[in-house]
Amino acid sequence: MSHQADRHPAGEDRVIKEIPPKGREFSEWYTAVVLKAELADYSPVRGCIVVRPYGYAIWELMQQALDRRFKATGHVNAYFPLFIPQSFLEREAEHVQGFAPEVAWVTRGGGEELSEPLAVRPTSETIIGHMYARWIRSYRDLPVLINQWCNVVRWEKATRPFLRTMEFLWQEGHTAHRTAEEAEAEARQMLEIYRDFVEGDLAIPVLSGRKPESEKFPGAVRSYTIEALMPDGQALQSGTSHNLGQNFARAFDIKFLDSDNTEKYVYTTSWGISWRVLGGLIMVHGDDRGLVLPPRVAPYHVVVVPIFTAARREEVLDAARRIAGRLGEKMRVRLDDRVEVTPGWKFTDWEMRGVPVRVEIGPRDLEARQVVLVPRTGGDRRAVPWDGLEGAVQSLLDEVHGELFRRAKAYLDEHTVAAATVQDLVDAIGARRGFVRVAWCGREACEQAARKESAASPRVIVEEPASGPCLVCGTPAREVVYFARAY
Amino acid sequence: MSHQADRHPAGEDRVIKEIPPKGREFSEWYTAVVLKAELADYSPVRGCIVVRPYGYAIWELMQQALDRRFKATGHVNAYFPLFIPQSFLEREAEHVQGFAPEVAWVTRGGGEELSEPLAVRPTSETIIGHMYARWIRSYRDLPVLINQWCNVVRWEKATRPFLRTMEFLWQEGHTAHRTAEEAEAEARQMLEIYRDFVEGDLAIPVLSGRKPESEKFPGAVRSYTIEALMPDGQALQSGTSHNLGQNFARAFDIKFLDSDNTEKYVYTTSWGISWRVLGGLIMVHGDDRGLVLPPRVAPYHVVVVPIFTAARREEVLDAARRIAGRLGEKMRVRLDDRVEVTPGWKFTDWEMRGVPVRVEIGPRDLEARQVVLVPRTGGDRRAVPWDGLEGAVQSLLDEVHGELFRRAKAYLDEHTVAAATVQDLVDAIGARRGFVRVAWCGREACEQAARKESAASPRVIVEEPASGPCLVCGTPAREVVYFARAY
Repeated sequence: MSHQADRHPAGEDRVIKEIPPKGREFSEWYTAVVLKAELADYSPVRGCIVVRPYGYAIWELMQQALDRRFKATGHVNAYFPLFIPQSFLEREAEHVQGFAPEVAWVTRGGGEELSEPLAVRPTSETIIGHMYARWIRSYRDLPVLINQWCNVVRWEKATRPFLRTMEFLWQEGHTAHRTAEEAEAEARQMLEIYRDFVEGDLAIPVLSGRKPESEKFPGAVRSYTIEALMPDGQALQSGTSHNLGQNFARAFDIKFLDSDNTEKYVYTTSWGISWRVLGGLIMVHGDDRGLVLPPRVAPYHVVVVPIFTAARREEVLDAARRIAGRLGEKMRVRLDDRVEVTPGWKFTDWEMRGVPVRVEIGPRDLEARQVVLVPRTGGDRRAVPWDGLEGAVQSLLDEVHGELFRRAKAYLDEHTVAAATVQDLVDAIGARRGFVRVAWCGREACEQAARKESAASPRVIVEEPASGPCLVCGTPAREVVYFARAY
Repeated sequence: MSHQADRHPAGEDRVIKEIPPKGREFSEWYTAVVLKAELADYSPVRGCIVVRPYGYAIWELMQQALDRRFKATGHVNAYFPLFIPQSFLEREAEHVQGFAPEVAWVTRGGGEELSEPLAVRPTSETIIGHMYARWIRSYRDLPVLINQWCNVVRWEKATRPFLRTMEFLWQEGHTAHRTAEEAEAEARQMLEIYRDFVEGDLAIPVLSGRKPESEKFPGAVRSYTIEALMPDGQALQSGTSHNLGQNFARAFDIKFLDSDNTEKYVYTTSWGISWRVLGGLIMVHGDDRGLVLPPRVAPYHVVVVPIFTAARREEVLDAARRIAGRLGEKMRVRLDDRVEVTPGWKFTDWEMRGVPVRVEIGPRDLEARQVVLVPRTGGDRRAVPWDGLEGAVQSLLDEVHGELFRRAKAYLDEHTVAAATVQDLVDAIGARRGFVRVAWCGREACEQAARKESAASPRVIVEEPASGPCLVCGTPAREVVYFARAY
């Protein structure tokens, strides 16, 4: 399973440059890691990035991990057009309000002005709704469980690699159901799949729950979200799932003949996760030496670095090749056998690229029939015998994953505080304390007041019993909400 | 490996309708198969199709088969922007001439007119060339071997599902090399990979070779192609690979410092294959009962159809489930356990969808501990014992693949004729004889004359020694060319 997901560093980069410290210059640190680990590059098109092979290899592993989960729950992939007629976007009132300002319009094609401009899809509910109206006839055709992997475009003003780009890659699931209950169960199931993926594969703990009305997807009855906490105390919305009720069914006339012989509108859902989570992964796990990759989405689990003296070069190289070959049957391995750079340079290089485990092998290790394992998360170097090496490396990979999740969870817990009053909320947000847990009466006026004072937004309503008074009006609270500043 | 790549047929289709005969109404037959096998549907956007789950599952298998081959030859995937600034397209003179008439232009975004229109990529040489100029510094950075899976848009006048659509999915490889020889070897290697994929996985025999100057990719030094023959006698260009020489390197200033310490332009290639080959597959292998899928890209290798009487329904169904479960460990299996339709209906349904092998199991088969295997290619039904069933099905799948290739090759051979004169060429093309092999002096004037008379085009120059006179001017021939009408 050897991959080649990286390129030989370009000449100018052969001396690895310092990156700014993560703690003090977080934003500069992020950009430096994205560029120097060769995850992405800026493009000549404003707001669009190029995802370089090493970054794309991570995205491919993310896609596979998600696609597996989608298919295991009965979903199938399909592909719908990139272009959406203007009139379609306008069919669902809230939807067009939400998306129209962000749309890129094709107005000319084949040398002619178009009679109706075509939107480059910002999301595909409308065109998929139109097709579902053609395909769905009877209750026997339900549920329809379709997912699409594609690019979408949203005209953003300020952009940052992965986190907010004009064009981005994502998946969007679109399902149609016979009953409101089935649609609700689907929306919740997909949120749970996102949580399981982000926590289980990316080692990023999240808060999981419902969006307040003010933050719903345009056209949704109910929106669900997973929210992660970044090291600067800001929340990152990392995946959303929407129960669209019958809003799109009515707008696009998606009806079915039920077993009672009456015609009814279907209930639909949509859910999406984008390459934005790759940005989250960089921020949460990276350190002053660069990227740190959770093993399940690392293009290389392991890099093997031979440490050779001139005298025993071939011998050490042979052993390194054997070790890499053996490990390569069980995991993704890269052998770094370059001769024009030193082992020390290679260590720094692969640390920058976040490879979870380094395997060192030098002349003395030959006699001892051992290698040295070094986890990217720091901690002890450990000499491990050749016999049973695969198992030892696998354990260390699991350890690295566990350690990354443990650290991120500790950070999340330390940076989640409770606030009983608006002033407490304002103070906690001002001190960059991360998530602030408040009790809320559920009224929009109170939400708006809390937003305005704190300059933070309600990220997620969790399923916990609320007690005590609303932080704003003091009437009995009905919901527990986490506020934060957000990306 | 059970998949769910299809949907329960919609109510209106529950009675399978006749499709026109392939032999007499080829074009109508093609459209009927695309729609009725639920491979694709028309969309409300002119020239754009929706690829439905069953069609997309075939495309996913094609992607995997190609991606495996690309990675095995050292290529890595990346992602470049959908939008290309107008000025970029104009940098390479031939390139802009070739593509500008087909471009869709974004002129408005975020509520404002753009100062420079953005092309929706028709192909990505220009934007990738720009990035390569930034990334490549030294001979040590070469070769760069990148592939991209993406959508592209070309404003076509007449469109047909898969064969010619305004938006289509494809892959485009873009490589940069130190020498002209390496670039030439790469272009040829990728053509050979396409040939191996189309013949080996799609069971479609092709002619493989060079394009004449008049048919080159805009901006290429040399273009290679694989050409398949469709049942209406027309050629289908099924994959192309281009040696771009230093044309794009000069246009985008892609230079490297060589080991001799001088600065040089790189040599680049590009190569692409699209979902068009899915159209080719439908046309070549399909028959009057619908689609026939070559096993390697069939979403289901096998469909298991239980044939139950009311009395022994559970018993037969249990056995069918066991059989499907066992086979499912080795291949992609679908169990059709629907009760609302008859076995005969299911046979017709899965024949329409082209599943290569049907497994029938009824009450009498329980006693005999056997099943009946029916290949989609026709021929004998065969009773096979449960013991060793996996091996028997695997052999039958190989047989189906071989039979499909054999038939297509026989057709290709029968429909490839030689012509010594322009009149022979005209007669052969007029009689829809398929490929017409001619000897040619290599001069454009003769090519143009042959084109004009025959209304056919030179599809491919093969690597065979030419003998005899040019079909037009009678001077000694230098090349062997196959003419045909083409999609």
